Amino acid sequence: MRVVRVVDYHQKLQLEDAPEPQITSPLDVVVKIGAAGVCRTDIHILEGQWAEKSNVKLPYTIGHENAGWVHAKGDAVTGLEVGDKVILHPLVTCGLCTAGRFGDDVHCENSLFPGINVDGGYAEYLKTGARSVIKLDPKLEPADVAALADAGLTAYHAVAKAARVLRPGNVVVMIGAGGLGHIGIQVLKAISGATLIVIDRNPDALKLAKGLGADHTIEVDEGGAFVQKVLDLTGGKGAEAIIDFVAEGGSTKTGLKMIRRAGNYYVVGYGENIDVSTIDIISTEINIIGNLVGSYNDLVELMVLAAQGKVKLHTSIYKLEDFQKAIDDLSAGKVRGRAILVP
Amino acid sequence: MRVVRVVDYHQKLQLEDAPEPQITSPLDVVVKIGAAGVCRTDIHILEGQWAEKSNVKLPYTIGHENAGWVHAKGDAVTGLEVGDKVILHPLVTCGLCTAGRFGDDVHCENSLFPGINVDGGYAEYLKTGARSVIKLDPKLEPADVAALADAGLTAYHAVAKAARVLRPGNVVVMIGAGGLGHIGIQVLKAISGATLIVIDRNPDALKLAKGLGADHTIEVDEGGAFVQKVLDLTGGKGAEAIIDFVAEGGSTKTGLKMIRRAGNYYVVGYGENIDVSTIDIISTEINIIGNLVGSYNDLVELMVLAAQGKVKLHTSIYKLEDFQKAIDDLSAGKVRGRAILVP
Amino acid sequence: MRVVRVVDYHQKLQLEDAPEPQITSPLDVVVKIGAAGVCRTDIHILEGQWAEKSNVKLPYTIGHENAGWVHAKGDAVTGLEVGDKVILHPLVTCGLCTAGRFGDDVHCENSLFPGINVDGGYAEYLKTGARSVIKLDPKLEPADVAALADAGLTAYHAVAKAARVLRPGNVVVMIGAGGLGHIGIQVLKAISGATLIVIDRNPDALKLAKGLGADHTIEVDEGGAFVQKVLDLTGGKGAEAIIDFVAEGGSTKTGLKMIRRAGNYYVVGYGENIDVSTIDIISTEINIIGNLVGSYNDLVELMVLAAQGKVKLHTSIYKLEDFQKAIDDLSAGKVRGRAILVP
Amino acid sequence: MRVVRVVDYHQKLQLEDAPEPQITSPLDVVVKIGAAGVCRTDIHILEGQWAEKSNVKLPYTIGHENAGWVHAKGDAVTGLEVGDKVILHPLVTCGLCTAGRFGDDVHCENSLFPGINVDGGYAEYLKTGARSVIKLDPKLEPADVAALADAGLTAYHAVAKAARVLRPGNVVVMIGAGGLGHIGIQVLKAISGATLIVIDRNPDALKLAKGLGADHTIEVDEGGAFVQKVLDLTGGKGAEAIIDFVAEGGSTKTGLKMIRRAGNYYVVGYGENIDVSTIDIISTEINIIGNLVGSYNDLVELMVLAAQGKVKLHTSIYKLEDFQKAIDDLSAGKVRGRAILVP
Repeated sequence: MRVVRVVDYHQKLQLEDAPEPQITSPLDVVVKIGAAGVCRTDIHILEGQWAEKSNVKLPYTIGHENAGWVHAKGDAVTGLEVGDKVILHPLVTCGLCTAGRFGDDVHCENSLFPGINVDGGYAEYLKTGARSVIKLDPKLEPADVAALADAGLTAYHAVAKAARVLRPGNVVVMIGAGGLGHIGIQVLKAISGATLIVIDRNPDALKLAKGLGADHTIEVDEGGAFVQKVLDLTGGKGAEAIIDFVAEGGSTKTGLKMIRRAGNYYVVGYGENIDVSTIDIISTEINIIGNLVGSYNDLVELMVLAAQGKVKLHTSIYKLEDFQKAIDDLSAGKVRGRAILVP
Repeated sequence: MRVVRVVDYHQKLQLEDAPEPQITSPLDVVVKIGAAGVCRTDIHILEGQWAEKSNVKLPYTIGHENAGWVHAKGDAVTGLEVGDKVILHPLVTCGLCTAGRFGDDVHCENSLFPGINVDGGYAEYLKTGARSVIKLDPKLEPADVAALADAGLTAYHAVAKAARVLRPGNVVVMIGAGGLGHIGIQVLKAISGATLIVIDRNPDALKLAKGLGADHTIEVDEGGAFVQKVLDLTGGKGAEAIIDFVAEGGSTKTGLKMIRRAGNYYVVGYGENIDVSTIDIISTEINIIGNLVGSYNDLVELMVLAAQGKVKLHTSIYKLEDFQKAIDDLSAGKVRGRAILVP
Repeated sequence: MRVVRVVDYHQKLQLEDAPEPQITSPLDVVVKIGAAGVCRTDIHILEGQWAEKSNVKLPYTIGHENAGWVHAKGDAVTGLEVGDKVILHPLVTCGLCTAGRFGDDVHCENSLFPGINVDGGYAEYLKTGARSVIKLDPKLEPADVAALADAGLTAYHAVAKAARVLRPGNVVVMIGAGGLGHIGIQVLKAISGATLIVIDRNPDALKLAKGLGADHTIEVDEGGAFVQKVLDLTGGKGAEAIIDFVAEGGSTKTGLKMIRRAGNYYVVGYGENIDVSTIDIISTEINIIGNLVGSYNDLVELMVLAAQGKVKLHTSIYKLEDFQKAIDDLSAGKVRGRAILVP
Repeated sequence: MRVVRVVDYHQKLQLEDAPEPQITSPLDVVVKIGAAGVCRTDIHILEGQWAEKSNVKLPYTIGHENAGWVHAKGDAVTGLEVGDKVILHPLVTCGLCTAGRFGDDVHCENSLFPGINVDGGYAEYLKTGARSVIKLDPKLEPADVAALADAGLTAYHAVAKAARVLRPGNVVVMIGAGGLGHIGIQVLKAISGATLIVIDRNPDALKLAKGLGADHTIEVDEGGAFVQKVLDLTGGKGAEAIIDFVAEGGSTKTGLKMIRRAGNYYVVGYGENIDVSTIDIISTEINIIGNLVGSYNDLVELMVLAAQGKVKLHTSIYKLEDFQKAIDDLSAGKVRGRAILVP
């Protein structure tokens, strides 16, 4: 089959031929890829940023946002049939460790991450585990939802966590109306009655945010006037929740100025350090909340919202062999919504 | 001032003249009534159903759903000015008992209930306490929201409690699309991504429910086919939450047939007994959850939804002196939405 | 191997010879039984009470509280070695349904229940699944803990659920200081600062309860004076939590008289109906909470308490071939603590 | 009456004569001081560290940990009688703002802080509000509990918050076994089944910690070997909760090395900055949780534990006029437990 591989860091990806994955364990599932999302992390992988963390052996196939159809399955797999239309939770988990037994899939002590530390979905077929497969609603197609498998799931997980403690009249500030943010906006409006302020440097992104349901949008300016605008919208008190999809370029420093006493700061993006005095943490009793991808059930719930038409993804479709153009367009900021590779 | 009083049980209400209430305690607030909701409980009071429970001394002024303007206030009242447009939480609470210190206003150990056990709002003026007064958004008028003070608050409290544990894909069955139900529908859709099935005997009520956002409506039939229809909509498994605004005429018996394993049955209405075998409770691990009015903060949140246009109340306005017609119309089922008395 | 089987209802159990269970699926685990608890449910099975519910094909081997050593395991089983000392969660679950993905093992949609609907542990060997096996701390032996696998787990699950919302000064009433109750007492005192009142008809059971840490014990009397005693201990307000391990013989009727406003009534035992007026449920805003066995993680936590010496089980050991005496002693109320069969 | 006042920053406190406080508002309560805790914050006040934050007008009376007897009360005060033995919540709150209505007293928008921004308890009498007064159990005396009013309350609040999500087998690391820590240890063991590791630089403090119930104690060493010791005690995974009573001298940097994936870091002390990369926050999905004093109900619960003998405070008693010796002893590290001034 055709695969797109990392052959070395700081080199371009290569289209190559590789054997199809085989069922070797009774809980294995082989999926015929219908669509694979192209993510900024893929570019970071090529730059070698993940080399040490993932410790993956080169060459390997990247692509960690995958959807398609069940192609083959191991003897112990129940509830799935060959041909079923599916999306894949990004991790392959054991289901036996304590975290897994509480449903915290991302904290599985024995997980694999296809596309990061084993072969992923820039390919015709991908091997995953039975615990990672979610059947799609008949109304949804792999190309519609593949990019929700990781980016969308991460946004959903953080926003749903925030929503569980938000009440009407509470205010949420989302920092960043990009890939994750535009999913986050739709999720928040679908599951919560809170008021949403979206901030971003990009006026076009804010326009999209408004169209997706943001109650207020504020452009980030160098002088920092946007902070005061948020405070003005919250009676000078700040927002009950800040959801930071950026966490670089100084976003946490300004973000922490917008938080209300006893508020929650959800870190989703990453890049910079959070550097905050402990007296500021305790005197206002704020919380800084980490967020990492999401659970299998989180992805199930996101697929419900997608099937109900409450969350829609803007996608740009590329053929698998046009992977380089997809990567180049993403690097150049030319992709409208999320780029998708279709074999 | 003019007041409408219960002079004796099983007699008609009387319009009489009474002295205006005076500030006698530093936390007292006297409100000029803008609107008072006419509630089925008022009819029950006249029938003597509450005589023993309330132990109120006759004659007294009824009316427990009140909104208006601050007319006078005690020395210790802060944050309110004469002329402020307000809605009143139905209870006058002490704020000093344990329940009050947790925000559970309805479980205050020293509360009064104007309109039930002290003089209420079928009048030109009403005395309440500082802890019961909520300032209205400029967009809202007393006549728009008075009936939310008790009926709406009760619906909000139960639905918000349910919503805090609901997730996309979960199903809620609301039993009864009447006064409370039509508020409950709007609240659920405003704060949750759950799927809503509304059941009622009345096709017109179901039509209204559909217009307010119910995903499915099912007419209750004598033969009980509606139970199977709910099961069919939930893959045979039942709903994660049942919110029973009726709780009489057999609704709990059929309602409990629609609940999913580990589901919650929210009792809001009252009338009949719940009679269920303990083996059915434990073998499916269901919960039966009581609901009583709501807290001050619940009412604040409901007013936010009202100001945002997410919850609207259909009202029929009567002059205070036409109280008898309002009562008669309510008894005869002729009131469209909720009846309101305006002095 | 030797097994003790139900050959027909209303007949005595029979000791027979049967083939050892074999690994047939990659997640199977065969356990050499070290101890099997003898439970009142076993007597109910013989009486035919479960015939319809379990739909088990006779003859079959009973015994649903099992501990021992790993004897053989399927290819996909990780984290376990032959010879490991283990206790078994009573259900064999799929791990793939929604409930399982949230950690709610007892609501698995595809579970088996060895000893109830497939062969159980009154035997030398038992087949279970990898998801049901918990390694024991070196300090614990199978005979010490087998009876915690179901009875203890059920008590733990209910008490831990209650404890999560209890605070110092809150009062818990436990109804029944028998098999489950004496575990429940130890669990509550180990994980909570709440005050515990234990009530029972049996003065000896109350003596044991006091020794295990109950703050107060009250003997149930026919006249019902015990209800007033509970009220007296709670300032006339009732207890924040009632945990009813009995739920027959009128315990729910008197139990509901002891509950505080906004309190929780945990149903653990079963037998009678709960028959309560909806006005009593809503006017006090109480909750009736079902409880069913417990999750895998619940049993892990209970094993932690056992290894720490915080929960101890009184056991009476019988040889497997003396099963009839164990059953007879249990029926006659002669067993001190829990009866255990050891092959 | 005699009072001990700050007359200027960087000067010694002065014993002076001042008029007794008078009831001027209907919710005022004047308390005859039975004991006032001497806190390190009092030294910081003298050093001018709080001058800007509190904006208090000099001279004023310090002392923010107070207990005694009701001496006089305003007209609207209910549930208290002159002569009642009481402890005082450190804040005087309005009870009318949103935070107060949820029971979050420390986030009251209109609070006063006697001893910090108005006259405190190094005096014979103190004025507070009805909402700040808690009646003491007959078994407790003001001198036994005064120092629990702020230091103890702060420890209780953080530990109880942690305990609500801890389960048997979970590990808590407490950093610092000093004034707050030795209360925190007792609270955790009283309300939770978690395993407790206490770390401190001072071997004597660790000895006390062990005596109070710590499961493990580890001495902090310059080389940082203590971090590895914590990891060794947690199977290399770290602790589910870190409660940092120090938060200076590098404790947060080493503390964050001891936290488990999905764990919570409770900041209670203050001094240094937390400086942590966002990728470390998200890749392990940890939370940093602020903690500030505690609510009125928290203090009620702590008084329950004190009355039950589960939390004991070591105190050293000084006469009010010996305030300078108390301050000097505290500065010199010579106080055994907490210093208390008694008029």
